[in-house]
Amino acid sequence: MSARKSTPRSSPGSAEDRLIARHFRPLATHPGALGLADDAAVIALAPGRELVLTTDAVVEGVHFFADDPPDTVAKKALRINLSDLAAKGAEPLGFLLSVALTREGADAWLKRFVAGLRADARKYGCALLGGDTDRTPGLISVTIAAFGTLPRGAMVRRDGARPGDCIVATGTIGDAALGVILRRDPGAAKRWGLDAKMRAHLLQRYLVPEPRNALAPALRAFADGGMDISDGLVGDLAKLCRASGVGATIDAARVPLSRAARTALAAEPTLIETILTGGDDFEILASVPGGKLEALRKAARAAGVAISEIGRVTRGRGEPRIVDAQGRVLKFARPSYSHF
Amino acid sequence: MSARKSTPRSSPGSAEDRLIARHFRPLATHPGALGLADDAAVIALAPGRELVLTTDAVVEGVHFFADDPPDTVAKKALRINLSDLAAKGAEPLGFLLSVALTREGADAWLKRFVAGLRADARKYGCALLGGDTDRTPGLISVTIAAFGTLPRGAMVRRDGARPGDCIVATGTIGDAALGVILRRDPGAAKRWGLDAKMRAHLLQRYLVPEPRNALAPALRAFADGGMDISDGLVGDLAKLCRASGVGATIDAARVPLSRAARTALAAEPTLIETILTGGDDFEILASVPGGKLEALRKAARAAGVAISEIGRVTRGRGEPRIVDAQGRVLKFARPSYSHF
Repeated sequence: MSARKSTPRSSPGSAEDRLIARHFRPLATHPGALGLADDAAVIALAPGRELVLTTDAVVEGVHFFADDPPDTVAKKALRINLSDLAAKGAEPLGFLLSVALTREGADAWLKRFVAGLRADARKYGCALLGGDTDRTPGLISVTIAAFGTLPRGAMVRRDGARPGDCIVATGTIGDAALGVILRRDPGAAKRWGLDAKMRAHLLQRYLVPEPRNALAPALRAFADGGMDISDGLVGDLAKLCRASGVGATIDAARVPLSRAARTALAAEPTLIETILTGGDDFEILASVPGGKLEALRKAARAAGVAISEIGRVTRGRGEPRIVDAQGRVLKFARPSYSHF
Repeated sequence: MSARKSTPRSSPGSAEDRLIARHFRPLATHPGALGLADDAAVIALAPGRELVLTTDAVVEGVHFFADDPPDTVAKKALRINLSDLAAKGAEPLGFLLSVALTREGADAWLKRFVAGLRADARKYGCALLGGDTDRTPGLISVTIAAFGTLPRGAMVRRDGARPGDCIVATGTIGDAALGVILRRDPGAAKRWGLDAKMRAHLLQRYLVPEPRNALAPALRAFADGGMDISDGLVGDLAKLCRASGVGATIDAARVPLSRAARTALAAEPTLIETILTGGDDFEILASVPGGKLEALRKAARAAGVAISEIGRVTRGRGEPRIVDAQGRVLKFARPSYSHF
């Protein structure tokens, strides 16, 4: 773990070492982290295992609000990476952390940030392997590279979907996208007829995703293809289809919604676009042969993860068709989020 | 490779996919990168090999200047990570990239950034494995997690230095720290009596480090301990000594300096502090048993890397002693850079 520099400043040499020892070392429970006392971590893989690698960042004002509790920022940063590992069928091993802090109130912020990170590192069995801390004159950003392992050749891939497969989604879709709207427009809760509990549910779903790592072994065993839903169900399904060279038909009425999302949608039917394309779900989208669906359902129940069958993989390429209860094909201006 | 979102914006869904395909896919030459068309990369290790993992970020205004050429920003971001792999004795395998771009002129900036990254990925045999692209309302930042491999148990560690070892440094020390001063205070070149070539040398050393990856096999073979010098020679040596439970004595006159640094130092002797503690050297500091020094020298010559013996590891703990040509112990207010 280290801090590099470019612009000399007047800080004592070992303040950062103390900061790392105090805040981060307790999270470095993997022997390969070397107690964060070296420049790098070193890991071996058990025979027959492969390493799955992913990275995702969160930036203040883009992926979280400046006044979000620091522990939730840490959890979101780790969990969006854990969600990728889950979708690929990998067991979490550890992560590298790069955090750019601003000057104001950094110590108090960092303390709460680390508390959240520590709780999740323990909860998901994903140890801190190393990292980098910097000061920035800009915005807080947290970049995590996360690593998981699985048996050789077992990764659940985007290009694995086969015509005839059932399409399943975990949890509920659209909550986080509605949560962002609530966050910006508190009046929306009243307009949508949400009670306090429903409002809290949507806000929480935006603040802290629930990665489905408990489902990873079942996905390896039963899914043909899969990915996590981060940029919106419709757009991410299109990516899965493109990678696999297939099409898909989704039954919009079967897309799993929370009670809060159902209530909001009933009050404002055009929210269906936000729900299906808004993103930040961090649920899993998988394609599963019909003959394995029951086994997956059973494993998901045992793992405590809700799954819903929402459609089918079809032959031929092209944008997935989203069909409503009346059999009409829904069209969306923006099927998924893009920064560019 | 992916972009996640929190704040819906009006961009077409596949613009980012096209951006990734156009700019980044050509760098994803490792089969485990899956052409950047999945959520994660997957790699196996050859039998008996271990994986070395490190991460470092560069932030606009902290680690590089806003008007630095984008290709040099890319090279710096990758090379500071390659330098860690080199110091640990690891062969580069690949890297994950997380880049936060600002809105203004992003496409032109990105094009030049990718050109620099591609050149170095090829030069150092370090393929892009995956990544994350985001827009930020703040400053540009580039975070890289780099991975290398080496034979099991062969990593050169910070805690490996033994009393009696010779201390060696690669390349020249202090150039980048002087380069930063020149960058901020163009008048310094005249004050220090630098000609155009010397000035260009110092500026370039700040802009683009020269990681010593060619030396990695020799370090594994001959070094007891080592690390890269990123936060200043004196402070980083102190870290090596603390980790190894040893002391050290450095002969300041034997610390390798470029002609430009020697010229500046002759004009302004107090620059010795900047040179020895300023950081951004990205050279290697290693401790080597006396009996293996000649073999290391020979291997370094063959690898085209200059190495200099600058002192000895001593018994007992405590801050390293830096001794000048008159035998006086030099004291520095700030032995190394710290953000905190």
